[in-house]
Amino acid sequence: MAKGETDMSERTDFSVTRAEALELLLKAWNPKDEGEWISLEKALGRVTAKPLYSRNTMPVYRISQADGIAVRSADFINGLPDTLRWVKGVDYVQADTGDDFPDEFDTIIPVEEIYYDSNNRLGLAEGFIFKKGDCVGEAGTAVRQGDLIVEAHVRLTPLHLAMLALGGIYQLEVIRKPKVIYIPTGSELIHAGIKPERGQTIESNSLMVAALLEQWGAEVACYPIIKDKPEELAEALDKALMTADLVLINGGSSKGVEDFNTGLLEKKADLFQHGIKAVPGRPVGIAMIGGKPVINLPGPTFAAFLAMDWCVCGLVHHYYGLPAPRRPKLRVSLTKPLQKWPDYETYVRLILARRDGSYEATPLGWDQNLPDSLLKMNALFIAPIGVSEYQVCDEVEAELLCGPEHLV
Amino acid sequence: MAKGETDMSERTDFSVTRAEALELLLKAWNPKDEGEWISLEKALGRVTAKPLYSRNTMPVYRISQADGIAVRSADFINGLPDTLRWVKGVDYVQADTGDDFPDEFDTIIPVEEIYYDSNNRLGLAEGFIFKKGDCVGEAGTAVRQGDLIVEAHVRLTPLHLAMLALGGIYQLEVIRKPKVIYIPTGSELIHAGIKPERGQTIESNSLMVAALLEQWGAEVACYPIIKDKPEELAEALDKALMTADLVLINGGSSKGVEDFNTGLLEKKADLFQHGIKAVPGRPVGIAMIGGKPVINLPGPTFAAFLAMDWCVCGLVHHYYGLPAPRRPKLRVSLTKPLQKWPDYETYVRLILARRDGSYEATPLGWDQNLPDSLLKMNALFIAPIGVSEYQVCDEVEAELLCGPEHLV
Repeated sequence: MAKGETDMSERTDFSVTRAEALELLLKAWNPKDEGEWISLEKALGRVTAKPLYSRNTMPVYRISQADGIAVRSADFINGLPDTLRWVKGVDYVQADTGDDFPDEFDTIIPVEEIYYDSNNRLGLAEGFIFKKGDCVGEAGTAVRQGDLIVEAHVRLTPLHLAMLALGGIYQLEVIRKPKVIYIPTGSELIHAGIKPERGQTIESNSLMVAALLEQWGAEVACYPIIKDKPEELAEALDKALMTADLVLINGGSSKGVEDFNTGLLEKKADLFQHGIKAVPGRPVGIAMIGGKPVINLPGPTFAAFLAMDWCVCGLVHHYYGLPAPRRPKLRVSLTKPLQKWPDYETYVRLILARRDGSYEATPLGWDQNLPDSLLKMNALFIAPIGVSEYQVCDEVEAELLCGPEHLV
Repeated sequence: MAKGETDMSERTDFSVTRAEALELLLKAWNPKDEGEWISLEKALGRVTAKPLYSRNTMPVYRISQADGIAVRSADFINGLPDTLRWVKGVDYVQADTGDDFPDEFDTIIPVEEIYYDSNNRLGLAEGFIFKKGDCVGEAGTAVRQGDLIVEAHVRLTPLHLAMLALGGIYQLEVIRKPKVIYIPTGSELIHAGIKPERGQTIESNSLMVAALLEQWGAEVACYPIIKDKPEELAEALDKALMTADLVLINGGSSKGVEDFNTGLLEKKADLFQHGIKAVPGRPVGIAMIGGKPVINLPGPTFAAFLAMDWCVCGLVHHYYGLPAPRRPKLRVSLTKPLQKWPDYETYVRLILARRDGSYEATPLGWDQNLPDSLLKMNALFIAPIGVSEYQVCDEVEAELLCGPEHLV
């Protein structure tokens, strides 16, 4: 935990807000709109590169829109015929929902309007009224060749896949996933799965970062841990920039003596900004190097999570030409007062609980252990710049971190 | 499209609501709580089988909680010492955020409180006040051996993965994914990717069904298309029941002459219910055979989607011991009147649009082509039993089908 996150007495002034920092990056980054061809079976969650139009007309000819029988309207011109004498396959045919039927028939009578007597002869239900062309779906009622199925820059859902299959689209062009390279730095770090000794910290952020990127549709490669040697990081960064669309460096984002990451980025970058007006997670570094974004994430878990959430999530969605996802919001009432720096946005972790038909929000402190403080929160309140305190019962807007089904 | 979906004059009466049908299945189904061991890297979205406790104490010994230097409090007993004469490595050491430091030191002075003069001698900032033990994180402040990290029956998020890594959990037991077998039926069906001819329909639902199941964390296998031959379906169903936890049959769920699926399930099932009091998608069949749920999904795309949504989604989450996901809701105002059967729930597909700070909802008819009617909707309104009409400007509760960022 960086000191600034718990202690309000000390701080370095940072000049940009989260929104301004992201805006700087988005303006400077023009990712190429590169497509790749994939099969429809692999397309869930992929983002379309081009509008996709139907190649099929469905139904091809026509279909029955009900379970029933197909008849000739000519037989009904002079009122209801004596169907008891009708022969199946000659005077009528079976035509259930979705079935085509021979050209000589033109109308469907639904199963609810007919009956078969004890001799299996066809009868019409009492009160039946004949209507020519009833329950017949003409060619193209579902989709016509050339109909737009889905626009460009749309993330494909299960329903899209069914529609594309219907439209005869089985291979399609989607936007290539952005390649993200993640570089963990710090001599104190060891890989997850190894028992830490005194002075060692487990490199746990790579798992979180990779999982978030997977959810947003990016491809991620994690580099081995870079020790606190400037030349090793410089080399790793150069290598990463050769293949990645986006590079993440984790750790060393503060201005400690061993935090030479900031210095390296400052030297190499066309655009560099250190720090944002938001806590926790102030000491994030944003840079553009050779036209590619390089983000220096803070080391502490929650600070790294937040930088992923506002910055990297925004970048990945910008790459795809999509708006960044927003969390559902809920009006809640605070159970404790809050104090904050007025010129910083502050992330407040909340536990929501239902009470008398509305929601009470208890802000979490930093005195619990990490699983308690990070995994029990079910909502965030991002307290804006310009406000320095909130009172008990103040109403604020919480962003849900879980589905509504998990709120008790 | 089944006739009942557009024509209100005719209907068969079905006796159970969606909620009642699902309740029947959940009461009858007791899936085994089988675990499997996986590595943390593969654990995103998996559901824990057991509570997981930390094996590590972190920090192992102690860490600096700020970028700064570690000093001895003994040197400050008689007021501030003359640090200009201090030697680095003897009187103090560098200790940035997360660093451990030698036992002889016990307090961190943050970088903001010190300076180095032109001769690189250490100075203390004006107004600096010494506090013994400041900025030192003791052993276990992040997590202690034995601390609960995550309960059983929790779907793992990116933050969980970081916490588990920190707690030394690298292999973990999760609930085995339920195996779902999907059997498409109908002589008119052809596989996606083949050009349909007159009388043929593309089997497009398997793609949607597989994608939904993937999102819910189930493993799915799709059988080849079964033609309208009762003995072939019976054989496929027997085979599926040998390996699957849950079987889905698509098509033939109405009572047409070729829809023998209903008859087969009725004969084989310990529990069978045909049809629900909800449209579209009334003719869904639910069955328990040999202790396993078998669901007969209707053929039309949207009807199949809805049966997946209320029924199969509920089953998969029940298997995991999780509440079924709920969509965020929004109060909206109707732009058109609605009529419905009072004794049926009715799914109304809505297009929401912002207007004067609130949301207007335009119900979609069935007169557009499928991509128009299914992909343009961004919310659903499930009109309840007991109501037969809604007027323009009536306020109803819409369930969002997209993220708030997509609402214009």
